[in-house]
Amino acid sequence: MSEQDNSMTNSALNVLNRTRIVMVHTSHSGNIGSAARAMKTMGLHHLVLVEPKQFPSEEATALSSGATDILERAVVTDTLEEAVADCDFVIGASARSRNLPWPLVNPREMATKVLALPEDAKVALVVGRERSGLTNEELARCHVHVNIPANPDYSSLNVASAVQVLCYELRMSAIASQEQEKPEWGVEWDQPLAKGKQLEGLFDHWEKVLVDIEFLDPNNPRHLMTKLRRFVLRALPDEVEANILRGMLSHIDKKLRRN
Amino acid sequence: MSEQDNSMTNSALNVLNRTRIVMVHTSHSGNIGSAARAMKTMGLHHLVLVEPKQFPSEEATALSSGATDILERAVVTDTLEEAVADCDFVIGASARSRNLPWPLVNPREMATKVLALPEDAKVALVVGRERSGLTNEELARCHVHVNIPANPDYSSLNVASAVQVLCYELRMSAIASQEQEKPEWGVEWDQPLAKGKQLEGLFDHWEKVLVDIEFLDPNNPRHLMTKLRRFVLRALPDEVEANILRGMLSHIDKKLRRN
Repeated sequence: MSEQDNSMTNSALNVLNRTRIVMVHTSHSGNIGSAARAMKTMGLHHLVLVEPKQFPSEEATALSSGATDILERAVVTDTLEEAVADCDFVIGASARSRNLPWPLVNPREMATKVLALPEDAKVALVVGRERSGLTNEELARCHVHVNIPANPDYSSLNVASAVQVLCYELRMSAIASQEQEKPEWGVEWDQPLAKGKQLEGLFDHWEKVLVDIEFLDPNNPRHLMTKLRRFVLRALPDEVEANILRGMLSHIDKKLRRN
Repeated sequence: MSEQDNSMTNSALNVLNRTRIVMVHTSHSGNIGSAARAMKTMGLHHLVLVEPKQFPSEEATALSSGATDILERAVVTDTLEEAVADCDFVIGASARSRNLPWPLVNPREMATKVLALPEDAKVALVVGRERSGLTNEELARCHVHVNIPANPDYSSLNVASAVQVLCYELRMSAIASQEQEKPEWGVEWDQPLAKGKQLEGLFDHWEKVLVDIEFLDPNNPRHLMTKLRRFVLRALPDEVEANILRGMLSHIDKKLRRN
């Protein structure tokens, strides 16, 4: 990533370099190219494609309009889980409000949040399918949802246009951050944040324990795990906190087996 | 213009209704359609085309993706002069700095300026040709120039993407102009927050269970409970979430006693 952008300090550039765009199940190859172009104009470089319908493709290359380096470096994965496994903070684009409320920000607030993360935090901005966006399950993997304010009568924002707006806000915030910086909780945190993979391990383990103690009925799970997820993600747990919860689960396991 | 947008007050909507997008000498019909779509998602309706290469066209209609009403109402003129003849304030999109310095704003500042205009001011946002933008003569017809901050190594912003960003900023400003207090997580939450008493009950219970499962050594508690507290409080749990955690603890109790 040879980023030669002289308009910003290294620390501001750093935010753009460690934020990836994740496109889930994109149907139209052209949108992948347009998104790459949108990213590059705003100084983002890291594109991850979860099960794209077609990639690489001539149409993506044509519409990338010279941002072919982004396409060449793009990573293709089978699952969203894989795409965000090493991420500290995952943001999901959501067009409409869901049954279960989830922390929701607009693009500007999203950018402010990203800028407030620790200096080495890896961030994923996830956008969904052209027609249907992200599923509830995919949205439950995100710390926070971002909604681009749109005309309620016609909110049909093109997916590459959404990427453009989100990347634009990140760039605007990165530029503004050169004037002042404030960490997320007002203090320098003492621990690195828990990564996506660690959190998924925690949730899997937690679910098993809840079944074991007969608190969660696998035949009627309701929203229990989703609510736990939402709660845990909202706190933006650090590694030690995630380890404490994991350790508690292991001790429950041990105790149940011993008795 | 039957604007039914309930998300905004009439005065905020008014700004979007009296701002037109002017596209000068657009070569690719698809960009006209994409721009119409971008406008409509942000609640703008008035499109003026100065000497488009082709209009109407099938490609514009296809890419407008249902924003055909914008295309049907679009006005075609021979000159920029004609397109902005009845406007109070004309803003020209400019990718690079010119020989003769001109008042220059970024999109956010542009939106602030537009919002500050008298309530009946007509505004034109002018974007230029795909390859070469606006000429110096065209830019000299503008009160102010707007520049979208871009990667200096690759500032090739698509013209419809530029329209998207500019309209987005207008909408954001229109919303901000009427904004009051926003709830903590950006959405109306579905549950009341857990009260102090409920949380203390939760922490007491949690501590007992952690001792029972031999995860917490009462003779050497370290910062375990403090860290759990900090984590839980950071998420600002609601009553249902606190009940879920409490329920989990009760089930662990039951299970341990039963075995």
